[in-house]
Amino acid sequence: MTKESLITIAEFEELARTHLPYAVEQGGRLEAIAPGRSSYRLPYSPKLLRPGGSIIGPALMGLADIAMYAAVLSLIGRVEMALTTNLNINFLRRPGQRDVIAEGRILKLGKRLAFGEVTSYSEGEDDPVTHATLTYSIPPEAR
Amino acid sequence: MTKESLITIAEFEELARTHLPYAVEQGGRLEAIAPGRSSYRLPYSPKLLRPGGSIIGPALMGLADIAMYAAVLSLIGRVEMALTTNLNINFLRRPGQRDVIAEGRILKLGKRLAFGEVTSYSEGEDDPVTHATLTYSIPPEAR
Amino acid sequence: MTKESLITIAEFEELARTHLPYAVEQGGRLEAIAPGRSSYRLPYSPKLLRPGGSIIGPALMGLADIAMYAAVLSLIGRVEMALTTNLNINFLRRPGQRDVIAEGRILKLGKRLAFGEVTSYSEGEDDPVTHATLTYSIPPEAR
Amino acid sequence: MTKESLITIAEFEELARTHLPYAVEQGGRLEAIAPGRSSYRLPYSPKLLRPGGSIIGPALMGLADIAMYAAVLSLIGRVEMALTTNLNINFLRRPGQRDVIAEGRILKLGKRLAFGEVTSYSEGEDDPVTHATLTYSIPPEAR
Repeated sequence: MTKESLITIAEFEELARTHLPYAVEQGGRLEAIAPGRSSYRLPYSPKLLRPGGSIIGPALMGLADIAMYAAVLSLIGRVEMALTTNLNINFLRRPGQRDVIAEGRILKLGKRLAFGEVTSYSEGEDDPVTHATLTYSIPPEAR
Repeated sequence: MTKESLITIAEFEELARTHLPYAVEQGGRLEAIAPGRSSYRLPYSPKLLRPGGSIIGPALMGLADIAMYAAVLSLIGRVEMALTTNLNINFLRRPGQRDVIAEGRILKLGKRLAFGEVTSYSEGEDDPVTHATLTYSIPPEAR
Repeated sequence: MTKESLITIAEFEELARTHLPYAVEQGGRLEAIAPGRSSYRLPYSPKLLRPGGSIIGPALMGLADIAMYAAVLSLIGRVEMALTTNLNINFLRRPGQRDVIAEGRILKLGKRLAFGEVTSYSEGEDDPVTHATLTYSIPPEAR
Repeated sequence: MTKESLITIAEFEELARTHLPYAVEQGGRLEAIAPGRSSYRLPYSPKLLRPGGSIIGPALMGLADIAMYAAVLSLIGRVEMALTTNLNINFLRRPGQRDVIAEGRILKLGKRLAFGEVTSYSEGEDDPVTHATLTYSIPPEAR
């Protein structure tokens, strides 16, 4: 792995606005990036709640997706056409009424596929809200 | 299994507006329901495209989720607190510029968990856009 | 898809003996093959039971794996180095004391990856014992 | 979580011989256990190789399964009827010709379900061979 991320937070945020608008529209932001690692914040909003107090599923799915995307790009740079091919997410606990932080980590970077996991937490808590594994497809010209 | 769905399309749509607003806001609608089966339509919209022509992932994830929710409720009736505990989705083909139809099917209904699969297609095509398996948790008081 | 399977039952069985010996050692056999479809039988044996009457997990996992392998080879012919990259299996019901039949089906055949699902049943029953989705990696020289 | 594992290595090994015989027959052994954590070793054997040098899939699946079982029992004690309901495994790298070590970790222990992940490594290497997530069902009388 490289010593520094191949994409900056500012470069990623600009790319995300067009490529993963869903998370961005909810006010999400990349907070930290390092080679193979990312930390992405989903701000708390009553709009994301469903009755009973759970955050709606697609918001947490989209959060895992964008955290993984950042972790992939930290290793391959600005590759627009990297695409999710698989997402497997487990909903473990009801999140609290606070921001959710997703921590992404690459477990394998191959020529054509990247595999990693994303664990999300209500801010300040130790027990995860969701755990996801994701596979991204990397276009041939990118490597 | 019952002979008729325990929830009507109108009852489901009313429930979805509050419990799964994401899909509803995108104009999605339940088109058919039968015991253990559902068909849910996500209308084509340029807003859902990401550069390169793919539909954004969370829209397809949310589509699988709501189609499964309908299939679950067809067997247990109006249970608001049924919650997704696992979603595993594979993105198989880029959808065309047309509506996407998700077909949900229950493979097991237990006392506490329901498991099923949802396959989505661009309207009029035979090859699937996504395939997902989902597990829903059913609250004890519901059965 | 082709009109006929690109591998015969006899060719597959010979390949399986060296490449997927686990299922073969348990007496498993391919019963039917067609383009993108397979049917594989795991004979009942008290050796495969664990206390409580469940069949041991790895036997059912290996069964899903070999059924998918056959379905993949039906479309690409005798490719020895096709390898499982992902298996997601749900254990739905305790199998009866009889043979288990696994039905494999390809949902996408790409240049580098094949994706499909395998559903297994106790012989003569309608409700599935397991449901699995699998991704196989296809070596570049094979296509 | 408890301060000490609720099952000892010796107690687990005795239970595994009857409940998860597959891994045991391959010479596997539990090497370490702590609350919510396990480390399980699969000894290298040419018998487990398939042509091309990969270890056969079911051996690695069974390894993930038994490592998770130990991690679950570390928190709930000797519960024989805890059963795998889902296993999702990604095969990331070809293992070397040496022992494979699986590290299990519980991410959620509920009343009825336990969820965790198992990562396996060729001994002495940093990059994982497989990554798996598993859900175990816990019988009601156990808690």
